[in-house]
Amino acid sequence: MGAPIASTEPRKIILDCDPGHDDAVAILLAHGSPAIELLAVTTVVGNQTLEKVTQNALAVGTIAGITGVPFAAGCARPLVRTIENAPDIHGESGMDGPVQPESAIELDPRHAVDLIIDTVMAHDPGTITLVPTGGLTNIAMAARKEPRIVERVKEVVLMGGGYHVGNWSAVAEFNIIIDPEAAHIVFNEKWPVVMVGLDLTHQALATDEVVKKIEEIGTGPAKFVRELMDFFQATYKDAQGFDFPPVHDPCAVAYVIDPSIVTTRKVPVNIELAGTLTLGMTVADFRAPAPADCHTSVAVDLDHERFWDLVTDALVRIGEVKVLVP
Amino acid sequence: MGAPIASTEPRKIILDCDPGHDDAVAILLAHGSPAIELLAVTTVVGNQTLEKVTQNALAVGTIAGITGVPFAAGCARPLVRTIENAPDIHGESGMDGPVQPESAIELDPRHAVDLIIDTVMAHDPGTITLVPTGGLTNIAMAARKEPRIVERVKEVVLMGGGYHVGNWSAVAEFNIIIDPEAAHIVFNEKWPVVMVGLDLTHQALATDEVVKKIEEIGTGPAKFVRELMDFFQATYKDAQGFDFPPVHDPCAVAYVIDPSIVTTRKVPVNIELAGTLTLGMTVADFRAPAPADCHTSVAVDLDHERFWDLVTDALVRIGEVKVLVP
Amino acid sequence: MGAPIASTEPRKIILDCDPGHDDAVAILLAHGSPAIELLAVTTVVGNQTLEKVTQNALAVGTIAGITGVPFAAGCARPLVRTIENAPDIHGESGMDGPVQPESAIELDPRHAVDLIIDTVMAHDPGTITLVPTGGLTNIAMAARKEPRIVERVKEVVLMGGGYHVGNWSAVAEFNIIIDPEAAHIVFNEKWPVVMVGLDLTHQALATDEVVKKIEEIGTGPAKFVRELMDFFQATYKDAQGFDFPPVHDPCAVAYVIDPSIVTTRKVPVNIELAGTLTLGMTVADFRAPAPADCHTSVAVDLDHERFWDLVTDALVRIGEVKVLVP
Amino acid sequence: MGAPIASTEPRKIILDCDPGHDDAVAILLAHGSPAIELLAVTTVVGNQTLEKVTQNALAVGTIAGITGVPFAAGCARPLVRTIENAPDIHGESGMDGPVQPESAIELDPRHAVDLIIDTVMAHDPGTITLVPTGGLTNIAMAARKEPRIVERVKEVVLMGGGYHVGNWSAVAEFNIIIDPEAAHIVFNEKWPVVMVGLDLTHQALATDEVVKKIEEIGTGPAKFVRELMDFFQATYKDAQGFDFPPVHDPCAVAYVIDPSIVTTRKVPVNIELAGTLTLGMTVADFRAPAPADCHTSVAVDLDHERFWDLVTDALVRIGEVKVLVP
Repeated sequence: MGAPIASTEPRKIILDCDPGHDDAVAILLAHGSPAIELLAVTTVVGNQTLEKVTQNALAVGTIAGITGVPFAAGCARPLVRTIENAPDIHGESGMDGPVQPESAIELDPRHAVDLIIDTVMAHDPGTITLVPTGGLTNIAMAARKEPRIVERVKEVVLMGGGYHVGNWSAVAEFNIIIDPEAAHIVFNEKWPVVMVGLDLTHQALATDEVVKKIEEIGTGPAKFVRELMDFFQATYKDAQGFDFPPVHDPCAVAYVIDPSIVTTRKVPVNIELAGTLTLGMTVADFRAPAPADCHTSVAVDLDHERFWDLVTDALVRIGEVKVLVP
Repeated sequence: MGAPIASTEPRKIILDCDPGHDDAVAILLAHGSPAIELLAVTTVVGNQTLEKVTQNALAVGTIAGITGVPFAAGCARPLVRTIENAPDIHGESGMDGPVQPESAIELDPRHAVDLIIDTVMAHDPGTITLVPTGGLTNIAMAARKEPRIVERVKEVVLMGGGYHVGNWSAVAEFNIIIDPEAAHIVFNEKWPVVMVGLDLTHQALATDEVVKKIEEIGTGPAKFVRELMDFFQATYKDAQGFDFPPVHDPCAVAYVIDPSIVTTRKVPVNIELAGTLTLGMTVADFRAPAPADCHTSVAVDLDHERFWDLVTDALVRIGEVKVLVP
Repeated sequence: MGAPIASTEPRKIILDCDPGHDDAVAILLAHGSPAIELLAVTTVVGNQTLEKVTQNALAVGTIAGITGVPFAAGCARPLVRTIENAPDIHGESGMDGPVQPESAIELDPRHAVDLIIDTVMAHDPGTITLVPTGGLTNIAMAARKEPRIVERVKEVVLMGGGYHVGNWSAVAEFNIIIDPEAAHIVFNEKWPVVMVGLDLTHQALATDEVVKKIEEIGTGPAKFVRELMDFFQATYKDAQGFDFPPVHDPCAVAYVIDPSIVTTRKVPVNIELAGTLTLGMTVADFRAPAPADCHTSVAVDLDHERFWDLVTDALVRIGEVKVLVP
Repeated sequence: MGAPIASTEPRKIILDCDPGHDDAVAILLAHGSPAIELLAVTTVVGNQTLEKVTQNALAVGTIAGITGVPFAAGCARPLVRTIENAPDIHGESGMDGPVQPESAIELDPRHAVDLIIDTVMAHDPGTITLVPTGGLTNIAMAARKEPRIVERVKEVVLMGGGYHVGNWSAVAEFNIIIDPEAAHIVFNEKWPVVMVGLDLTHQALATDEVVKKIEEIGTGPAKFVRELMDFFQATYKDAQGFDFPPVHDPCAVAYVIDPSIVTTRKVPVNIELAGTLTLGMTVADFRAPAPADCHTSVAVDLDHERFWDLVTDALVRIGEVKVLVP
């Protein structure tokens, strides 16, 4: 319900991420999809340190042959909490598995927070979608530093949280619990927020069939994704008992490309900041129909086949890219 | 899973309640079922003040013709929090709707906490099931005053909480949130706890068909239940938007009578005591298979037809009772 | 301010304690003072396990030659939190140092909670002072089980807390933090509460001069106190850096004997239950004059000389006691 | 203890404030003292909205004849909490009392957070002292956006908090409780933090004698201060019962000018973020000597006479300023 009507213009997005295996797929999907105009890639501490995830983002951009898109580094630690990374899932580099190329992309000198603000303020109101797939530190900082971005942004489509599913605690998800105060800021600003949480992304499994299709594309980028998935499958099996890894982050990009792939539901969502067992929970209140001014919605059901078709289609479009592997 | 094997002996229970429309049905079900030996009815502040719910319990006992079972009053307020009643659901008396008879039952002079302790200690270990259908103040007090009851009790089958459903807040249920510290005590003691929460009881709707069947029994107690349901339907419609009221409390009794009516799942459950949005949440951790020593389980699915068959069957067995209505 | 007017009748007290070196001195002071009528000694988990502190209480009663006073054991654990004892201060037995005698006193079969309730209800209203010197579990349980004791009790003079001083955390004291929910119950009931906290008891140092005076009494009980103080001095030096140990608990008894020894101030006090850094803090609000109905006050200044005179005088009055040391 | 040795060079400060009557005096003191080189004045929401306090800062700068110092506006709301202003103390304008002049100063276009970062990064390490006298939102944002400022800043001398005194709650002070997460950030970064809290500033009373001395200076700025003090005295009397108003903020500047005016004590301090009664408390742990790496200290005692001498001396030095009053 409430899915925006598809437009013929590509949608302008800023992808704020912490690659991360699934962030890498999100970047590739955003770059390869004709429905997306990727305005900037910004990085934030999360799956690994800022330095590592920034390096990884540049590597993915290189592998994908992205040019003309600024990549900028953002916050090196959460607002209030100490840094928590996820080496058990993403390895020591944050993107273990494939050999990484030397970066062909130079980092933008601007701080991610300023790049986000400048980009939003330079475009027409209602034209830019923010797609955070890591902790929400950069987005929260940008909203506080320049409050006018809130009404200029079209919507925030974020990967994070879960209304009935947790992974980093019984009821909290990694991207939210690593910086719950930032999440509280983002969910309480009055821009439209679409929470693509674990309820949805645990449906986005990279099954054998999916991985096989990706492999058959036969290009460098496809091989890179395949190797990412191999590593991801192993760690998700070990750490959380999954047979196939949930590939979270591209779900948010897929929703921007084609909202009909994801069923959503309008519901008030807020972030628990004080709980002993529930810190960082995305508390959704389903008790009554959402009020008319409800600006948050949650992703409920994924069309698994069409989702993976978007990913493979993007990889096919990206094609072969000449990359220097060290 | 983990449902106890049915025995041929009636199961001994102590029903700790705060009538309450659905508590009344729970008392009638426990009294009318041949599978239950009702050892005591104890009352606790909750749906209304202790004085009112105790009066209501005696009235229900009178209507049902219960004799030889001690009724005792317990705690008049929660451990730490201030009193919160539910007049929007249960009316000013706590059991609005039918005219209430004069009580034919004399209140036991003992405190409910002592009656619970004495009863458990006087019976063989592993023979008594506690069935709390209100706040958990009495049960918590009993466990703290006489810790030996914990290993003597067979199990605690309680109506309260909800792993994915709340009613008094987005994620908390009335019986738990009115005394979360008591709930914390009960869930953390190592006796088997079966949480019959809103996830289950919102399936126990008193539909038109159900109410019609009850009415057709034609006895005084059945008429009483019918009138209770009429009132309950109206308030549940007004306060929470339900078309038919969920009749929570007898679900716990039904589980004791025949566990096969309720699907349960073993899962660690704990109570949030510090959250701003999540106070009193029954936090269940479904991320991994429950550990071998997990002593808590949650009710998941109800066999609606067999559940209501138990209730109507109990009413039929109770038959007509001579009651003095003032 | 607000000190009760001295009466010529001995004050009736129930001493609820967890001996404990300073609890032992409190028992001796209560027993030896002609201004006190000791109605009961009840024990509660705290400085050590319930079993140990109960054994210690009986030992102190034996050493002091107490007869005709019921000793009863109470709660074996705090309401909500897990057990925390203080072996670093009180040793493995909870009263390390002197050799303990065989108990000449038989434990009362009643639960401390019931003994407290029965004693208060059996005496005239306004005649009994509760003097808790351990965690407040028993007192809280009694207030919840029998709410009528609240208006019958004359006042609660408790050792615990600190408005500007902590010991178990930066801002919390041991007796309160080991059962903050019980403390919350006790401080929020409307009986007069005098908090004899660390602000005061850190003035009650057992200096060399004090210990010498006690030793010079030359009796068995005095020798026992001296040996307690030797051990207490050593652990307080090691664990908290004190040159002389603060002898907390008898300060509460001394206040009952002669309120003029302790300056107090009326101020609202409540207990923090949710803080990360402040759990169990006794939060006093000094911002404005206490409201007329303020029922809590805090001890501010101690007359060190007169305090210790009371203790030595009590020991002199107790005199020699024939005790069987194993 | 620990007071830095006085240097002959003026100390470079950035004054981050929310004028505010006492902020105004702080600006005048900083501008008029030869020991201070005022590098920038930045504003932050607090005593009133960002718009109002920024206007007030410009007005004070105009009255004081400040030129060549950038004034920049910062954050319009706290990080996580909703905006709380203090009209009961500072009036509707945030600086009620005197007639305000038209501003002769143009606001710097940079965001305060960037001005702070740029200024610190442009100067030699260890040369700049941050002096926040409002909520800590700007300083926290700067530390998160550019973590390298933390080791470049000489120290943070802030007005806020109180180790034994609260004003906005029993144990919390306004500047901290309006943005406790920002305070948590600032106190947990490893720069030296001197907390000039209510314990100290409640000694900085603008007595009749003080106000008379200021009046006798006879200049426009002195008259302005006098009128500020008149209003401040009235609201502090009404709202908090003070006979003379505590003039908080210039105490922080005075400490920078001459640390010997303020006795300080090294002690670990942290901010409570989760307490029900203690949110925003500056929790100081006095239980043991501060560890060697302790980077926080608290102001304890003020030399009242020398403090006010600094203020009057600054006003004398500022002398008469030509200001256009509308």
